[in-house]
Amino acid sequence: MKLATIRLGDRTTAVRVEEDHLVDLGLPDVGAVLASPGGLADAASADGPRHSAADAVFATLVPHPSKVVCVGLNYQKHIKEMGRDLPQYPTLFCKFADTLIGAQDAIRRPAETDAFDWEAELAVVIGRQVRRADEATAEAVIAGFTVLNDITCRDWQFRTREWLQGKNWDSTTPVGPWLVTADEAGGPRPALDIRCTVNGQVMQQDNTGDLLFDPVDLVRYVSTMVRLNPGDIIATGTPGGVGHARKPPVFLRDGDVVVTEIAGLGRLENRVLAEEA
Amino acid sequence: MKLATIRLGDRTTAVRVEEDHLVDLGLPDVGAVLASPGGLADAASADGPRHSAADAVFATLVPHPSKVVCVGLNYQKHIKEMGRDLPQYPTLFCKFADTLIGAQDAIRRPAETDAFDWEAELAVVIGRQVRRADEATAEAVIAGFTVLNDITCRDWQFRTREWLQGKNWDSTTPVGPWLVTADEAGGPRPALDIRCTVNGQVMQQDNTGDLLFDPVDLVRYVSTMVRLNPGDIIATGTPGGVGHARKPPVFLRDGDVVVTEIAGLGRLENRVLAEEA
Repeated sequence: MKLATIRLGDRTTAVRVEEDHLVDLGLPDVGAVLASPGGLADAASADGPRHSAADAVFATLVPHPSKVVCVGLNYQKHIKEMGRDLPQYPTLFCKFADTLIGAQDAIRRPAETDAFDWEAELAVVIGRQVRRADEATAEAVIAGFTVLNDITCRDWQFRTREWLQGKNWDSTTPVGPWLVTADEAGGPRPALDIRCTVNGQVMQQDNTGDLLFDPVDLVRYVSTMVRLNPGDIIATGTPGGVGHARKPPVFLRDGDVVVTEIAGLGRLENRVLAEEA
Repeated sequence: MKLATIRLGDRTTAVRVEEDHLVDLGLPDVGAVLASPGGLADAASADGPRHSAADAVFATLVPHPSKVVCVGLNYQKHIKEMGRDLPQYPTLFCKFADTLIGAQDAIRRPAETDAFDWEAELAVVIGRQVRRADEATAEAVIAGFTVLNDITCRDWQFRTREWLQGKNWDSTTPVGPWLVTADEAGGPRPALDIRCTVNGQVMQQDNTGDLLFDPVDLVRYVSTMVRLNPGDIIATGTPGGVGHARKPPVFLRDGDVVVTEIAGLGRLENRVLAEEA
């Protein structure tokens, strides 16, 4: 099953994505679906008004997650090619919910950065509240997966030793277009091709099966410290090929088109535009 | 004016704190008051049922802020005594809202840490939404101040280069007891004595006038990157005297009582208890 949040005029609604149409679930977004008592089971059987799939405009998949937890270096091949040892623990940082945008929204480049970069990522979406999940529980609470691009201002990221300020610019992080439930994505540890192109040129290409800390590991680890709630997002890290590691570095310019794809999960297509004053 | 969130059975309510009683504002918490159209002005004039001040049990002041932004080293005297240069930019990290507890709640020590530490802090509470605040706007959007203790698992903080995982254990961060509006706190850059004691022994003592990046600076800086919303919290950093910097290090044990006080703002008193399984 695929679930999305679409725009209808000045409101949004959650839909179940069918072959050629969308079924309105009567709730404002996928976060509200996951937080509802019936959750995914009700979403699977619900009937409601139909919308055209061809005309859909995707809003932020989950607009108000209580947490967006992000992971640093996590693709093993990339860690090794950087000459580093595999870490014992995942490196975690956060994004605020106000950074999130829809799958086809413009990415607004702030005037304050000269180093605006891409990071294609597999994102885990949590289905129900959990704390200190064991392995079986961690598998069970993963509602599914989606695609995210952790767009980063490298100059701000490296101003201090903490990465937060490079990662938290308003409305810069596309996520979507839909939640693909774990059963359709290949289980709770999917091995899927992930790719990022800029203006058609392949910049990142890897497979999510190479993650050192897989989605189940991350749900276990993060939930050791803090509860995870329905709609919470864990962005699992990015493969090699980001702009600041290229020689010479390459950064996003106004007008660039960033496409972030994970096979079987979906595709983000976002144009970079100067932020309006 | 002082505003608080108190517990009434299994619900909470926002109150205005008067000399000897509390006036019920008819909203569930101080976050809801700040987000309401009338905001602080309505709260100042509102009438409602009265509650006893003596019996008040304080809940989390703002239970669902969209952001809790925290600052690393920020007391100038402490930075200099550590032999470091004054930094050009504030070091920022985050706490999730699920870490917050009330002013007298027990701090639950997780079994997973052997290095549970204190960090007394002045916290800024935002009154209305702002992005890219200039100095006058930054002053104007500060609703007021409160007291916070950024309780930290040092062993987890230093597992990786990002601090998030030492700072985000469920229900470990007391905040309150009330919001003191900026006019009553001494303006938007208050110079107030701050102190943390453990079992009556003074561990930290300084004055918030020594902050390198003052509250107005921080609202300007953070709002450059991301919008700040009503009820959002900026924890401004802690003075010297934390447990892990002592020789030998001192950490919190079950039964310890942590008192965090800022003159004119209020007092947190929290007992450390082992987390229930």
